[in-house]
Amino acid sequence: MDNNRYCVIMCGGVGSRFWPFSKSAMPKQFIDFFGTGRTLLQMAFDRIKGIVPVENILLITNESYEPLIKSQLPEINSDQILLEPTRRNTAPCIAWAAHHIKAINPEAKMMVAPSDHLIINEEKFRQSVTKAFDFIEKYDALVTMGIKPSRPETGYGYIQVGEAVEGDFSTVKTFTEKPNEDLARVFLESGEFYWNSGMFFWSADSILNALNAFAPEVNTIFEQGKQFFGTAQEMDYINANFEASPSISIDFAIMEKAPNVYVETVDFGWNDLGTWRSLYEHSPKNKDGNVTQNCKALMFNSHDNIVAIKGDKLVVASGLEGYIVADVDDALLIVPMAEEQKIKQYVNDVKAKFGDKYL
Amino acid sequence: MDNNRYCVIMCGGVGSRFWPFSKSAMPKQFIDFFGTGRTLLQMAFDRIKGIVPVENILLITNESYEPLIKSQLPEINSDQILLEPTRRNTAPCIAWAAHHIKAINPEAKMMVAPSDHLIINEEKFRQSVTKAFDFIEKYDALVTMGIKPSRPETGYGYIQVGEAVEGDFSTVKTFTEKPNEDLARVFLESGEFYWNSGMFFWSADSILNALNAFAPEVNTIFEQGKQFFGTAQEMDYINANFEASPSISIDFAIMEKAPNVYVETVDFGWNDLGTWRSLYEHSPKNKDGNVTQNCKALMFNSHDNIVAIKGDKLVVASGLEGYIVADVDDALLIVPMAEEQKIKQYVNDVKAKFGDKYL
Repeated sequence: MDNNRYCVIMCGGVGSRFWPFSKSAMPKQFIDFFGTGRTLLQMAFDRIKGIVPVENILLITNESYEPLIKSQLPEINSDQILLEPTRRNTAPCIAWAAHHIKAINPEAKMMVAPSDHLIINEEKFRQSVTKAFDFIEKYDALVTMGIKPSRPETGYGYIQVGEAVEGDFSTVKTFTEKPNEDLARVFLESGEFYWNSGMFFWSADSILNALNAFAPEVNTIFEQGKQFFGTAQEMDYINANFEASPSISIDFAIMEKAPNVYVETVDFGWNDLGTWRSLYEHSPKNKDGNVTQNCKALMFNSHDNIVAIKGDKLVVASGLEGYIVADVDDALLIVPMAEEQKIKQYVNDVKAKFGDKYL
Repeated sequence: MDNNRYCVIMCGGVGSRFWPFSKSAMPKQFIDFFGTGRTLLQMAFDRIKGIVPVENILLITNESYEPLIKSQLPEINSDQILLEPTRRNTAPCIAWAAHHIKAINPEAKMMVAPSDHLIINEEKFRQSVTKAFDFIEKYDALVTMGIKPSRPETGYGYIQVGEAVEGDFSTVKTFTEKPNEDLARVFLESGEFYWNSGMFFWSADSILNALNAFAPEVNTIFEQGKQFFGTAQEMDYINANFEASPSISIDFAIMEKAPNVYVETVDFGWNDLGTWRSLYEHSPKNKDGNVTQNCKALMFNSHDNIVAIKGDKLVVASGLEGYIVADVDDALLIVPMAEEQKIKQYVNDVKAKFGDKYL
């Protein structure tokens, strides 16, 4: 394996859309979502470790998740875990990782990957990752993976491909946020639109140049501490300065602005597991269309529900059609799947009424 | 207070219709159902202790509930608790209590009362109890309390009154099991039908004579151990012989057969709390008609539900109309209130599939 290849797995998300199954103390990347014995984070790590040297895999997360990461990935050393003292979205997260890696290895090529997505065909995934690394080794390119859409999904961002460059790589014509259903159908039929996966590839140099040019308000924070990266003083510097960065996404800060952005169109069975419905759709169902996620459930006269219960608990339900039933420790959620977009709002109401107690 | 007056509180029921709120390890009589700080058993005890000497109040229950009774009623002595080694319905239960009391006090007059009912007007209740004791002191009578019905309830048994005897007391024309709705409406309109409360009054002699005449297969078991009642050998005798009794209700064994049965018609606000709906109807509701029994619940777009959760747990629910949501430790029940009659069957399915683990 190429020692210049790095992977940064982002695993600091809170996962409030899956409350209470995913809570701030235990977000979804740390959960064995499919009952396979591996958490989403572990699955993300397993996928990567065949193509990037294990010592070049970095985890970037909120400092509160350090114990979870250490227990779930015992093969990772402490110096491979970057602990953000506060949450500042993906641009500062990636900027820190790029400065850190550049200090360790100026020739570094980086993949940036979320930790909480589902990928079905790992062999095709590895081929696509390898092609992306090859591409950014040849070109000063910022590459994003675009997933071939299989349905008019309204929950994702879309990338419209431009001119073919080589192989699966093209220029990008537009980035589009979540479309309405009519538009999503047009996107699907056109064949020009791909789902924005949040997986990126670039050399440390390319992303740092782009950050300097298009997000100086983020980059300066790290640029000014350059001498500390890769040293024992790095964490002190980060703890003192990270918070000063604006909270901004890498898509908005860089990908929608830089001229050297390319999309690799891929098709390996992907789901961002952003919603209960997406989990429902990717889980095995019984004859009544019920998904009973890791739990014992007797369902009478009930169809098309997803039941996710933590621990050895029994659910007896009747007359439920299309509901989410999630029960974890001190919280129980029962809402129609059609209302899943409101869960975030319900969680806000919980916070307003009870503080952080149940979050 | 009259030292010949006794009360037997039956508190051995399993309460499976309220599963999982009521479990075999903690049936409903031992639960603070209304969040008042007193369990149903404690409320039953409180109601009686003003009219019967505390030392004449006996508790008869399954042996597994001894610790619960002792902790909930610390003012009761061990010799006031009769522990059935096995469940055998109300006739053997009452037969044992009558033999026991007769051995202690041959002049005893007994009230038999369930421990898991709700009585609203305790003052009127006490007046009716006193009248019933007065009546059985005058007559060799088996008295049952008939509750003036307030609605065409299909979940109760009915007593049709016959000829007036004196005061609130009449002979009984018929006992009728749970009627269908049309019949229940006819019963209500006729003014002749009263709800069978399961509260009885008789002298020890009267009930023992009736048991001897109409349920000898039950009575013989106890009659043969006569010399042991009220002695240190009583429990050994019961443990060796109680199980041999047929399982039969006092209504079926005696009340529907004996010629000296009378009904006292009463009206003190009564509910047998036999079903979730009856609990729902007797609980305070919020503006959406939701009852949130002792628990924290955020209910969105939801009406006419009853939510009963044990412990400090938060429920967030949406789109529920007329459901029972009950969550206790390792079991969660979500069923429409209209299906509550099926809960027993669901619990049977739980037993068939998982044994006693969740019961």
